[in-house]
Amino acid sequence: MSILRRTTRTCTIGTDPARQVLVGSEHPVAIQTMCMGKTEDVEGTIAEIQTVEDLGCDIIRLAMPSFDAAKAIPLIKAKTKLPIVADIHFDPRLAIAALDYGADKIRINPGNFFDKSYLEKVITLAKQKKAAIRIGVNAGSLEKDLWEKHGAPTAEALAESALRWVNFVEYLGFQNFVVSIKSERVPVMVEAYQRFAAAGNDVPLHLGVTHAGLLIPGTVKNALGIGTLLMQGIGDTIRASITDDIVKEVEVCKSILKSLGLYSKEPDIIACPTCGRIEVDLPKMVHEVEEATRHLKKPVRIAVMGCVVNSVGEAKESEFAIASGKHAGALYYKGELYKANVPEAELVPELLKLIEEKA
Amino acid sequence: MSILRRTTRTCTIGTDPARQVLVGSEHPVAIQTMCMGKTEDVEGTIAEIQTVEDLGCDIIRLAMPSFDAAKAIPLIKAKTKLPIVADIHFDPRLAIAALDYGADKIRINPGNFFDKSYLEKVITLAKQKKAAIRIGVNAGSLEKDLWEKHGAPTAEALAESALRWVNFVEYLGFQNFVVSIKSERVPVMVEAYQRFAAAGNDVPLHLGVTHAGLLIPGTVKNALGIGTLLMQGIGDTIRASITDDIVKEVEVCKSILKSLGLYSKEPDIIACPTCGRIEVDLPKMVHEVEEATRHLKKPVRIAVMGCVVNSVGEAKESEFAIASGKHAGALYYKGELYKANVPEAELVPELLKLIEEKA
Repeated sequence: MSILRRTTRTCTIGTDPARQVLVGSEHPVAIQTMCMGKTEDVEGTIAEIQTVEDLGCDIIRLAMPSFDAAKAIPLIKAKTKLPIVADIHFDPRLAIAALDYGADKIRINPGNFFDKSYLEKVITLAKQKKAAIRIGVNAGSLEKDLWEKHGAPTAEALAESALRWVNFVEYLGFQNFVVSIKSERVPVMVEAYQRFAAAGNDVPLHLGVTHAGLLIPGTVKNALGIGTLLMQGIGDTIRASITDDIVKEVEVCKSILKSLGLYSKEPDIIACPTCGRIEVDLPKMVHEVEEATRHLKKPVRIAVMGCVVNSVGEAKESEFAIASGKHAGALYYKGELYKANVPEAELVPELLKLIEEKA
Repeated sequence: MSILRRTTRTCTIGTDPARQVLVGSEHPVAIQTMCMGKTEDVEGTIAEIQTVEDLGCDIIRLAMPSFDAAKAIPLIKAKTKLPIVADIHFDPRLAIAALDYGADKIRINPGNFFDKSYLEKVITLAKQKKAAIRIGVNAGSLEKDLWEKHGAPTAEALAESALRWVNFVEYLGFQNFVVSIKSERVPVMVEAYQRFAAAGNDVPLHLGVTHAGLLIPGTVKNALGIGTLLMQGIGDTIRASITDDIVKEVEVCKSILKSLGLYSKEPDIIACPTCGRIEVDLPKMVHEVEEATRHLKKPVRIAVMGCVVNSVGEAKESEFAIASGKHAGALYYKGELYKANVPEAELVPELLKLIEEKA
C-alpha cells in the first residue's frame, strides 16, 4: 500500500544548490524543527542545530523577535548546512531584516502583521532574494471578518483565510511559497488542510498542529494530525511541535514518516510490546538494534520479537528479524529461517552481522 | 466537529453490574492495557494493575501461558475493580481454564489454536459463563489458505479472515464478542478495519497496532492507526501497545481519545511548543497545571501559552487560559480577559483558583 501524493509545484528553500531543500510532491517530505533558545545567542543556537542536523532534520526555524536576531542569521548560517527559516510575527520590518540578512525562508502569518501595507514589500523582497515564504494561518491570526462570518476559527474559516492569502501573494507574482493551516484541535486541523487541498491548487503544504503539548499528548496529536493527512497524500514538509527538546520533535517526525513508508534514510524497527509471555530483555535488545543500525541509512525493515507467538508469522514480513524464545531465538532473512537456536546473548550481534552482509 | 460512531451492538465484559464494562457505540471508548509481569506472580500483577486503575484504564489483560496463570485469576480479580481479560494463544485448553477460573473475557486468535476442534467448546463455555471474547486476527495467525489466496497478510486478507471467524462464532449462537484485526503496518491495519466495518455488521471493534515499538515510534504508530479509525467513527475499545511501562500505554490511549474529543473524564490541556520567543518556564507551568487539575474529572479545556503571539486568539478557544508575556501574564475565562498583569509566580495558582470557582 503506497501513498499517492497530492501533486504540487516545488518550493525551493535556499539559493545554493549544494544546500537547498526542495519541498513538494516530487521530493521526499522534509522534516523541520524550531530552535528553543534565543536566536541572538549565536553559539547556543548553533549547538542546538547540531543536535538535529545529523538526526534527519532538513530545515531549521529560528525565532525572530528582534533585529539582533536577524543579524545572527549569517553567523548561524555559516555553521550549518540546513536552510534557515526566520519566524516572523507581528512586525513585517523583521521579515525585511531577516531577508536582508540571508534567511532562506521566512514564515509569516499575514493576518498578524500590524501593518498589512508592508506585505507587498516583503513579498517583493523575497522574490528579489529568491527566498521562500511560508504563509501561515491559524486561529490566532484569523481575520476578523472571517471569524465573524464563520462564528469561530472553524476548518472552513481557516481554509478560506489561507486561500485568500494565496490569491493575494500570487497576484503579486510570487510562487515560491508553502502554506500552513494550523489548529490545536486535530479534527479541525485535518479538515482545514483537506478543504484547502480540495479547492484545487498546487501549493505545497507545511503540516503542523499548534500547541500540541508535552511528549505523549504532543506526539499523539502530531502523529494523528500530520499522519492522517500524509496518509491521504497531503503534506510536503512537516514539523511536530512538542513542549520538549527539539531532538524529540525530529524523532516524532521521523517516526510518522517511517510508519507510513515515507522515510527512506533509516531502518524501520518493529518491536513487539512486552508482556507476561516474554523471556528476554526486549527493550534492551531493541535499543541495541536501534543504536547499531542507525548508521545504515537504508530503509530495511527489522523485526525484534520477544516470543514465538507472533514472531513466526510476522517475522516473515520484515527483511530481517529476531524471533526470540526462552534464552535463545532464531534469525530470519527475507521471511525464511536463517539460523535457529541462537543463544540470547548472541542474537543481536548475529543479527547485525547478517544485516552487514546482506543489506 | 464531533465524531459519529459506527453503530454497533454492545459487548458486556463482566457479569457483576457494579464492575462490568460495556463496549460498543452506545458507550465511551474503553481503554485497555496488558500487564507486563508474569500473571502467576499475583502480588506483582495486582501492584501493576493498581498503577493504571486510577489513571483511566477500563479493562486489564493478562498473559495466560500456563494453568498456574489461570489459577491466579480469582486472586487478582478480588483485588481490582477492572474486568480481567485472559490472553490465550496456541492452547485452547488455557482458554477453558481461564473461563473456569472466572476471566471476564478471553482474547483468542482462533487461527493460532493448535486444535481448531476446541473452538466450539471454548465458545460454548464462554456463553455459559456469560463471558466476553475478543476474536483476534493478525498476520501471525492468518490462515494458510488466505495467505496463499492474497499472497501476503494484506488488509483484504486480514478482513476476510476476521469476517470468516465472525460467521463461525455467530453460527454457534455467540454474540458477546469484539473483533481485532491487527498489523504492525499502520496503513494495512487502518485499511483492514475499514474493510471489516464496510462489510456491514454491528460487531464492536478493538483497535490496536501490533509491535508498535518504543515510546516515540510506538506512540506515533498507535496514535496514527487507532486515531485515524476513531476519527472515522470506527473503534469501541483501544489498546496502545508500546515497549514501555503500561502507565505509558494508558496515557497514550487517553491522549488519543482527548485529541479527538472522545475522553470525558479529565481536562484537556493545550500547551504551546517552546521556542525562542518564550520568556517563562513553560514546561514547568504545564506540568504544574496538569498535576493540579488531574483530580477534576471534567472535560474542561485549559490553554497554557508561553507568549502573546498566538495566545490572544487561541486562548479564546479554551474555557480557561493563561496567556503569558514577559514575567507576567493574563488569565482568560470563556474567551474573555479575566485578569491581566498577573505576575509569573502567581499565574498557575490564580488559574487553579479560577478553575476551582468556575468548573
